[in-house]
Amino acid sequence: MRPAAPALAVRVLEGIGEVRPGDDLVEVILASAGGTLAEGDILVVTSKVVSKAEGRIVRAADREQAITDETVRVVATRAHEGGVTRIVENRLGIVAAAAGVDASNTEDGTVLLLPADPDASARSIAEGLRSRTGHRVGVILSDTLGRPWREGQTDIAIGAAGVHVFDDLRGTTDAAGKPLSVTMPCVADELAAAGDLVKGKARGCPVAVVSGLAHLVGPLDLPGARSIARPAERDLFRLGTDEAMAQGTVAGRTAGYSAGRSIGFAEGFAAALAATERERVHR
Amino acid sequence: MRPAAPALAVRVLEGIGEVRPGDDLVEVILASAGGTLAEGDILVVTSKVVSKAEGRIVRAADREQAITDETVRVVATRAHEGGVTRIVENRLGIVAAAAGVDASNTEDGTVLLLPADPDASARSIAEGLRSRTGHRVGVILSDTLGRPWREGQTDIAIGAAGVHVFDDLRGTTDAAGKPLSVTMPCVADELAAAGDLVKGKARGCPVAVVSGLAHLVGPLDLPGARSIARPAERDLFRLGTDEAMAQGTVAGRTAGYSAGRSIGFAEGFAAALAATERERVHR
Repeated sequence: MRPAAPALAVRVLEGIGEVRPGDDLVEVILASAGGTLAEGDILVVTSKVVSKAEGRIVRAADREQAITDETVRVVATRAHEGGVTRIVENRLGIVAAAAGVDASNTEDGTVLLLPADPDASARSIAEGLRSRTGHRVGVILSDTLGRPWREGQTDIAIGAAGVHVFDDLRGTTDAAGKPLSVTMPCVADELAAAGDLVKGKARGCPVAVVSGLAHLVGPLDLPGARSIARPAERDLFRLGTDEAMAQGTVAGRTAGYSAGRSIGFAEGFAAALAATERERVHR
Repeated sequence: MRPAAPALAVRVLEGIGEVRPGDDLVEVILASAGGTLAEGDILVVTSKVVSKAEGRIVRAADREQAITDETVRVVATRAHEGGVTRIVENRLGIVAAAAGVDASNTEDGTVLLLPADPDASARSIAEGLRSRTGHRVGVILSDTLGRPWREGQTDIAIGAAGVHVFDDLRGTTDAAGKPLSVTMPCVADELAAAGDLVKGKARGCPVAVVSGLAHLVGPLDLPGARSIARPAERDLFRLGTDEAMAQGTVAGRTAGYSAGRSIGFAEGFAAALAATERERVHR
């Protein structure tokens, strides 16, 4: 008998109402899951409810300042009818529009910041669920992000605990026996995407449970989603095209100016001498 | 009674052996699925097997030329120990390393090109499956791609037929009643990612079946994955940072040179006149 074909199931937890500052998400999740969590499950939690529980709420009027405060590096800006969107690297190393500061699904007059430390938040949830259920579960915090080159958004992982964020295949071989030197699927982002397929269908359901991928679940001290962020110095797209062109133009202009000025000086000097000489001869 | 919570299931089709040029993928899939396909299923098919079936195979020695042939625009290049990786826009509008020309999971001495028209290939498979099973199914062709800012790869959709590639929420409202003006999840890419979570676990299984998302399945003439590619002129990252800086530097140098040369000429001219004057006075 051959083993059962690999399969996964994703479902949403129902009945999670509005999450408020100070809410204990472990309690909220357990109340909603009602004993259905199982060994090896991976919970994909919309980071927004974590932000709410952690009270990461600011007045909408302070949104631009909040974005500035969350920003460590401006990557690109885009002007549109509503103002200017800033695509920035935030203090978590995540490159995102508006530093992840979000105004949708929030109370009127407020915006939400990302959790202060999403990996730590994920860990605290995973720890609580593990100790309360006795099951080894993993936790992903997800957020919705646009991306270069492709329209639309996908959910990605901004926090993770107790789950491998990469299915590291480097050093293994493909079906033809060739080494897979660079293949390293980012399963944390794929889990976030899978979660969104059901969470998106059921707006207002911020937690999805993925079953069937227990091999991706591990100790709580596995590297978190922070390890997915590529450092700017190793990124070919660390700056928007227009911004990089502008920087290059400034540098080129300075260098060109100085080269042109030397040449021009010599040309001007020679031209003046020639003119003086003509004048002398004609005098 | 409240309705059942939204849920999806993803499984791989087992027993699909090596696919060869000329193979009929509809037959291959039906043989493997053994009557298990159902109304509203979405098949996520690794584009590699489509390339193989379509005979999109070239000699490995011709790989660099093949990449050049598939390229319509170089976006960025990266030098590494093994040579230079070119990140390019290919003729499908997809930005990918090596134009999607792939050497893993291929026979020795060969590389695979992407399908000539992945949306058309997806449509032909979807059409065949629909007419043979009587079920309305959707088809996504997936490929594995790296991305800016984040380490590792995720599977994305390069072809689609009979399935909505976006779950277009623009014009709807969020749970708080605010309009979702830009939210447009790219469910095709999320489906490809979900498929990879089980296909990756079971290397050698190129087809995953997603059940439970029948609301995303539609007519065969829905826009394909081509509609996901963002045109370069609307992309903030249409060129790598180094490439854009280099272009900016050239433009800046030319402008700076010409400005510097005018100033330098005037300065040189004045300096020569002053020197001549001093010489005259001292004579």
